[in-house]
Amino acid sequence: MHNKPYILIMAGGIGSRFWPYSRRKRPMQFLDILGTGRTLLQMTFDRFEDIAEPEQFVVITYRKYLPLVREQLPELKPHQILTEPMRKNTATCLAYATYKINSIDPEATIIVTPADHLVLQEKKFTRTLKKAVESAQEGKLITLGVKPNRPETGYGYIQYIEKPGTNAFRVKTFTDKPNTKLAKTFLESGDFVWNSGMFVWKSKSLIHAFEKYMPDMAEVFEEGEDIYGTAGEAEFVASAYTQVKSVSFDYGVMEKSSHVYVVLGDFGWSDLGSWHSLHRLKEKDENNNVVEANAILYDTENSYIKVEGEKLVVIEGLENYLVNETDNVLLICKLDSEKKFREFVSNAKKKGEDFI
Amino acid sequence: MHNKPYILIMAGGIGSRFWPYSRRKRPMQFLDILGTGRTLLQMTFDRFEDIAEPEQFVVITYRKYLPLVREQLPELKPHQILTEPMRKNTATCLAYATYKINSIDPEATIIVTPADHLVLQEKKFTRTLKKAVESAQEGKLITLGVKPNRPETGYGYIQYIEKPGTNAFRVKTFTDKPNTKLAKTFLESGDFVWNSGMFVWKSKSLIHAFEKYMPDMAEVFEEGEDIYGTAGEAEFVASAYTQVKSVSFDYGVMEKSSHVYVVLGDFGWSDLGSWHSLHRLKEKDENNNVVEANAILYDTENSYIKVEGEKLVVIEGLENYLVNETDNVLLICKLDSEKKFREFVSNAKKKGEDFI
Repeated sequence: MHNKPYILIMAGGIGSRFWPYSRRKRPMQFLDILGTGRTLLQMTFDRFEDIAEPEQFVVITYRKYLPLVREQLPELKPHQILTEPMRKNTATCLAYATYKINSIDPEATIIVTPADHLVLQEKKFTRTLKKAVESAQEGKLITLGVKPNRPETGYGYIQYIEKPGTNAFRVKTFTDKPNTKLAKTFLESGDFVWNSGMFVWKSKSLIHAFEKYMPDMAEVFEEGEDIYGTAGEAEFVASAYTQVKSVSFDYGVMEKSSHVYVVLGDFGWSDLGSWHSLHRLKEKDENNNVVEANAILYDTENSYIKVEGEKLVVIEGLENYLVNETDNVLLICKLDSEKKFREFVSNAKKKGEDFI
Repeated sequence: MHNKPYILIMAGGIGSRFWPYSRRKRPMQFLDILGTGRTLLQMTFDRFEDIAEPEQFVVITYRKYLPLVREQLPELKPHQILTEPMRKNTATCLAYATYKINSIDPEATIIVTPADHLVLQEKKFTRTLKKAVESAQEGKLITLGVKPNRPETGYGYIQYIEKPGTNAFRVKTFTDKPNTKLAKTFLESGDFVWNSGMFVWKSKSLIHAFEKYMPDMAEVFEEGEDIYGTAGEAEFVASAYTQVKSVSFDYGVMEKSSHVYVVLGDFGWSDLGSWHSLHRLKEKDENNNVVEANAILYDTENSYIKVEGEKLVVIEGLENYLVNETDNVLLICKLDSEKKFREFVSNAKKKGEDFI
């Protein structure tokens, strides 16, 4: 059992990046965004089937999404799904899951993955993971870095120090969402990779890091050592979540620790960060439009048209636009307006909770 | 009775100008396009109430719209609504109605009006009509001309020969839908007016014109003289409509007759020819948008947003666009794309009759 890593899937996000298609009640990880017949959560599960048995998976999600996780991953037993009583950012989420797994198996190696990313080349991915697991078992905190192919401004970048003969390179800097100029510099320099948000470590190693860099967090979750897995867990966790601060894991641990290493991979990764990035991945018509609708287009280019049902959609003269109608919301905006989605959703909420 | 004119309302059009809001099943004349609580047909009826008793009205429509006319104008008795068995253009429509009215009242004066135009200044309109009726009773074929205020390319233009001391000026030329350059020349010259599509004449005068310029048409409808108003009328008309050619009244009579005169008026007329022209008339927000929707707009200007119901519409970055969702169709196009509507509707029809 100690040789097979645990797969920790973080599936609690409420992201508004694919609004109005994704909703508070059904965020993107629970949607079949790629039209494959499997949701992103299910595709994430499938991706690790080669290297982990079903009982090695742990999914952590927001309590309201428990029914969705159960429905979409019937392979999991109840104790494999952890629920967060409230949202307290990624450091809290990882602390809870790590302390819990560590209480079951103090020699656990854990692969952490978001539930809403895409990996197109699964064999390459598996090979990268194996290297990462080996390095993690030496006590390192491993983050998976992806070779960038464009100056993407929506991603985080990791600068690393190359050292021949090793699989894991020491991380020098983290930079989240650089501007275009900086992203171009990163791309040209050759010693930057995208931060995939996927990690590998021993539970012990991460607990040491929490103790060192977030001692308040460590203290709270350490106290649950004898409670995890008992009838008192939910009550303990509810209390723990009220005591800790909302801090991102990147800020609280990764950017501070000197034990952070990157293992490089090139496995067709995308964080599916926006309609724009989804447009890049999808099949397009001769005018570079993604059309998921009963639509007739005139003079329309490089757009993403997604309207559910049999409704007829007639569009003339749009270039670089998104048109998405889902349920009770119609959104028409520039395809690259991802930075405005927070505002869209926040203002939509004022019109009614039903719209978000 | 001879002093009060008949009001002939032509309400058979299927126009696609306001598609998808207007549909084959309910063309624009049957819609409350201005949001006044009255449909365009009803507003047309109301406009003549001062100068005609309810029994002076005759509505001619396509047979499928008979229930709509009955519902919207309960003031009319069955014999006041003429139905066309098929569409055979405006000359046929006017021939049938004129011969029918003439069979009842050979001294009839008839005011002809489309059911889908707008008149904002009704008092001025009534004054213009009175002059037109006087001239018509002298035997002239009168068309109402409207002083143009912009080089509109969607209208027909009438060039007239001014003659001081008279109300009705002899028509020199008709020009339908000139290009912008020509429309500007017309506007500057000062001797062109818009062809409102409203006419006044004695039934006798028009019958003479049919006999002279469209003798085939005259012959067919003359034969019904003893049948109009009897149980045989529908059968006779059905047969008549199969015998005549589909010709526009402008082409078949107006452009050929030397008895055509124009009476000028300035009464806030619009033919509501397009979403663009409706946009011009409607109340707008601070960015010149007409918003008839539960909408939130960002960086959006000079657009027309009409989406029924409580659906939330979020729009970013549109300028000069129409967004209309009605029933099972969503249309997004340039606001001034009126020339493409025929194509839109014709292609929509291929997707299903339900969409048009």
